[in-house]
Amino acid sequence: MSKPFYEQIAIIGTGMMGTSLGMSIKKKGLCKKVIGVDRNFDNLKTARGLSAIDSYTDCLKDGIADAVLVIFATPVLSTFEIAKRMVYAVKKDAIVTDIGSTKAELVSRMTELFYEHSNYIGSHPITGTEKSGAINAVDGLYEGKRCIITPVDGTDGFTIEAITKFWESIGSEVAVMDPDTHDRVMATVSHLPHAVAYALIAGVMEGEKSGHELLKYAGGGLKDFTRIAGSDPLMWRDIFMSNSKEVLNSIERFSRTLERLGSLIRAKDMKGIYDFLDGVKDFKRRMVDR
Amino acid sequence: MSKPFYEQIAIIGTGMMGTSLGMSIKKKGLCKKVIGVDRNFDNLKTARGLSAIDSYTDCLKDGIADAVLVIFATPVLSTFEIAKRMVYAVKKDAIVTDIGSTKAELVSRMTELFYEHSNYIGSHPITGTEKSGAINAVDGLYEGKRCIITPVDGTDGFTIEAITKFWESIGSEVAVMDPDTHDRVMATVSHLPHAVAYALIAGVMEGEKSGHELLKYAGGGLKDFTRIAGSDPLMWRDIFMSNSKEVLNSIERFSRTLERLGSLIRAKDMKGIYDFLDGVKDFKRRMVDR
Repeated sequence: MSKPFYEQIAIIGTGMMGTSLGMSIKKKGLCKKVIGVDRNFDNLKTARGLSAIDSYTDCLKDGIADAVLVIFATPVLSTFEIAKRMVYAVKKDAIVTDIGSTKAELVSRMTELFYEHSNYIGSHPITGTEKSGAINAVDGLYEGKRCIITPVDGTDGFTIEAITKFWESIGSEVAVMDPDTHDRVMATVSHLPHAVAYALIAGVMEGEKSGHELLKYAGGGLKDFTRIAGSDPLMWRDIFMSNSKEVLNSIERFSRTLERLGSLIRAKDMKGIYDFLDGVKDFKRRMVDR
Repeated sequence: MSKPFYEQIAIIGTGMMGTSLGMSIKKKGLCKKVIGVDRNFDNLKTARGLSAIDSYTDCLKDGIADAVLVIFATPVLSTFEIAKRMVYAVKKDAIVTDIGSTKAELVSRMTELFYEHSNYIGSHPITGTEKSGAINAVDGLYEGKRCIITPVDGTDGFTIEAITKFWESIGSEVAVMDPDTHDRVMATVSHLPHAVAYALIAGVMEGEKSGHELLKYAGGGLKDFTRIAGSDPLMWRDIFMSNSKEVLNSIERFSRTLERLGSLIRAKDMKGIYDFLDGVKDFKRRMVDR
């Protein structure tokens, strides 16, 4: 595979994800210049200090004017709002992508918005940490991770090929999915676990109002949940909002499964409980084997 | 604090927890001889190889005959059954404890059983890993961890003092709780998170039947849950069985909290969702600060 080379890449949003991506782009030598665009100068300066970007601006139009690849690394619900304000200024043949965690709603709106101006395609690199801000950028965050791209009927082959090459050059393994399937799969494997973790911690905090400092007695289990539930609330608000249907479906399915375990416990069904718990063994083995 | 010294300690059950405890007892020099009692000779030999025990036997009576401290490191529901078979052979003044994760039911039965024969007191060291078997024993597993002891009205002061000294000498920080409070607190901070993790993974596995290999797209969130849900099914069956009332209560409370988040998502209440998610921040900070 020949390595792509871009004259200029603009990263809109230099938080943890955007800055980490800039670091990889620079390290892999995929372009001459990366421009960071953000309203938050702390993030911009930190990203510059980490050599994730070559220059920065808080002016959208200036930032993207000469970019041949524009990457939105913004919270999902902000992406379209920002896109509306810059679509007219994007270079005619520029490729535009985003790295948002939900795709159906956004891809549909972005595809329409950019239809005449450029080549938009959605991306979702499956990576991240629970920390936010450029200061928490991670070198190699995208390497060895899957990146789902979500072309639609109108996406042209050149765009698909170009974005595939881009992510592969970063070190990611590209998978293709339609936006609806993507959102359904992600609701199950990512959005639901986060909703559950948030609810679990919220419940423990309520329990503490009864007087016990429960945290003192928390073992490993709760600690893992706490880490997950410590993810950026703004990012997750946007994910839950923009994938509400599938998230609600997955919450409902999960509640039924938990109720099934509850019924077994209520019935003191020793064999039933054991089989339920033992049933996840296979999944764990596959997870470890990955 | 003067370090206690025991002529002989018997550990019944040389799995991961029992073997790790033997390692600490030996390392801290708390006794002349540790005897491991188990039906599983693989565990016994491994424990011996790790110098967690000095000798071993599969004969309960021989194992505990000369022990002045007997520690049950067996699944909660097995403990009482085993105890019934050896109670007559325990030394008159021996201290007996267990390290089970639920206390109310077991402590009540054990207290009655050992009433005339020895000094029983329940212990629950809040530590562990999701792995089982002597082969997975961890050096220092109990050090720096909390251990809850659960005396009841009839427990004499000498027993409380002795077991406190024992755990402190191991390196644990001792807290005192009555068995009912213990079980209520643990249902919230430990048993519920495990039930939820098991149900979550069971749900994903069902989802896979629809054809997608969901695991391929799982990010960090699901991985943490998988680790928790990979805990020993027998141990957790016993925990859910022996603390069924509090576990069911905590599942019900949790379901209501999750439903509250679901309602906010259904209503597309951006501020409500954000506040819900942001609300756990404080808990996370306290968790990290520990």
